[in-house]
Amino acid sequence: MDLKDDKQTVSHSSPVCVHNPHLDSLKDDILYHFSLGTGTHDLPAMFGDVKFVCVGGSPWRMKAFIEYIAAELRMEDPKSEYPNICAGTDRYAMYKIGPVLSVSHGMGIPSIAIMLHELIKLLHHARCTDVTIIRIGTSGGIGLEPGTVVVTKQSVDATFLPKFEQVILGRIVVRNTDLDQSLADELLQCSKELNQFNTVIGNTMCTLDFYEGQGRLDGAFCSYTEKDKQEYLSKANKAGICNIEMESSVFAAMCKLSGLRAAVVCVTLLDRLKGDQLSSSHEVLHNYQQRPQILVGHYIKKHLNVNAVRS
Amino acid sequence: MDLKDDKQTVSHSSPVCVHNPHLDSLKDDILYHFSLGTGTHDLPAMFGDVKFVCVGGSPWRMKAFIEYIAAELRMEDPKSEYPNICAGTDRYAMYKIGPVLSVSHGMGIPSIAIMLHELIKLLHHARCTDVTIIRIGTSGGIGLEPGTVVVTKQSVDATFLPKFEQVILGRIVVRNTDLDQSLADELLQCSKELNQFNTVIGNTMCTLDFYEGQGRLDGAFCSYTEKDKQEYLSKANKAGICNIEMESSVFAAMCKLSGLRAAVVCVTLLDRLKGDQLSSSHEVLHNYQQRPQILVGHYIKKHLNVNAVRS
Repeated sequence: MDLKDDKQTVSHSSPVCVHNPHLDSLKDDILYHFSLGTGTHDLPAMFGDVKFVCVGGSPWRMKAFIEYIAAELRMEDPKSEYPNICAGTDRYAMYKIGPVLSVSHGMGIPSIAIMLHELIKLLHHARCTDVTIIRIGTSGGIGLEPGTVVVTKQSVDATFLPKFEQVILGRIVVRNTDLDQSLADELLQCSKELNQFNTVIGNTMCTLDFYEGQGRLDGAFCSYTEKDKQEYLSKANKAGICNIEMESSVFAAMCKLSGLRAAVVCVTLLDRLKGDQLSSSHEVLHNYQQRPQILVGHYIKKHLNVNAVRS
Repeated sequence: MDLKDDKQTVSHSSPVCVHNPHLDSLKDDILYHFSLGTGTHDLPAMFGDVKFVCVGGSPWRMKAFIEYIAAELRMEDPKSEYPNICAGTDRYAMYKIGPVLSVSHGMGIPSIAIMLHELIKLLHHARCTDVTIIRIGTSGGIGLEPGTVVVTKQSVDATFLPKFEQVILGRIVVRNTDLDQSLADELLQCSKELNQFNTVIGNTMCTLDFYEGQGRLDGAFCSYTEKDKQEYLSKANKAGICNIEMESSVFAAMCKLSGLRAAVVCVTLLDRLKGDQLSSSHEVLHNYQQRPQILVGHYIKKHLNVNAVRS
């Protein structure tokens, strides 16, 4: 399979868009939190072939993902070494194998937003086209068996509305949190083909806090009752919310703005209607966390094969 | 110096408060993002002597800080090894030497909030008293020579108001962002004694985003002009804002609620009136980042000596 040849068969290749007229006047663009830059690195040579970007909170998990996907694509490094491309910083970790890039983003909207600004610029500078980006994460489920994988239909805020409020120069700008529905459907289909674990499509609530913001009763502060919590989560469930995490809204908003085909695939580590603490064993939680990787790995493998056959 | 003896001479010891009646009914409390828990770790034995907690975004910097403070306090480990207490997870890193705890918190309000919930519970479970907590971070300055250290008077939001909006069960609760003024004054005094770099007291703006949220012109998206940016930063400056970062408001709010004596000490890596990119050399930026460590190290050393003399 030759991706370069393959690209030529695609009639309408879609670039990664930045929307910033000021970038053209920058002599060099320093991607500070990646410890990369246009003046110090040949970004087209390093990243020009990227077609799939997978992002997740934990750097360890994103390293495990690149090892997994390398084996799945039969592109293992003979030495089995996958260097961290962002080794010059501890803010994020980044790994690459063939057309797949794996990047960590830390926890919460601000942390993933910094990463996405620099990732979108990186893909733009590298002149990447037709990039699919998938967040593979963890979440709390609502009324789902722990271990269920949720593919996000819409990312909604703590009032169950599908919007992301970006503060720009002190003023709130509301952004759309639409994700790519055909990609979500494809991922659901992949899960059916795999038949290894339950996967559902549903809304995902994105909060700014893990404890009070998600109605947990086990934070340092809690001013509400168990009944208040259950009522809130039940209302969320009635609004079509299947799970709760902390990054999907800004991820959806920024990917949409830059023309990236985007999906959010999160496993539920617990059922929040039954508890708050993550008390499952390390092994069980580890197994759950592999499920989005397996699902997305299957999707990537299928997609590359299909393209290879087409070309 | 014996901290236990010293503690007995303090007439009114101040505990670390949680405000959560549900915690008492938990059999074990799992501090998931630290990979610690009351059922698996003897928290009073591990942390009961902690008097100073220093937190910062970068795990590497927080490791460097514990090495620095160990040398300053003449408490170096003979093997010079400082194990990461949170080695079971990659979410945060934690190091301890004597009465000093050093913890990383990642970037942004949600990331530091998760850490603080679990840190406050940890200090509470460990029955710590009279704890001082200082965030040692990096920031963008407004009209200050790069390398200037800012001790925060008040943490304000993107509209320059001293408040933090915590979303609880979908509703906004406004919290106070007061910091300990006497601690800020003491830190300023320490800087005068050191006489190594400029330190000022001023307001710190805490934003949810590094690019559009801080008026940068070099993000993936930018819909405003250089003039808009300058006007916003000038207004901020007139409101007494000396620097901009991404964690101080929730840090101030949560520390105040839990009765921790808290301060924010951030170095400015650049003057935002003159640019947006972090283009100084690695060496210069590294030198700047040591300044809050040196300042807080001096404070801790002075404070421990003073206490030792008193007892």
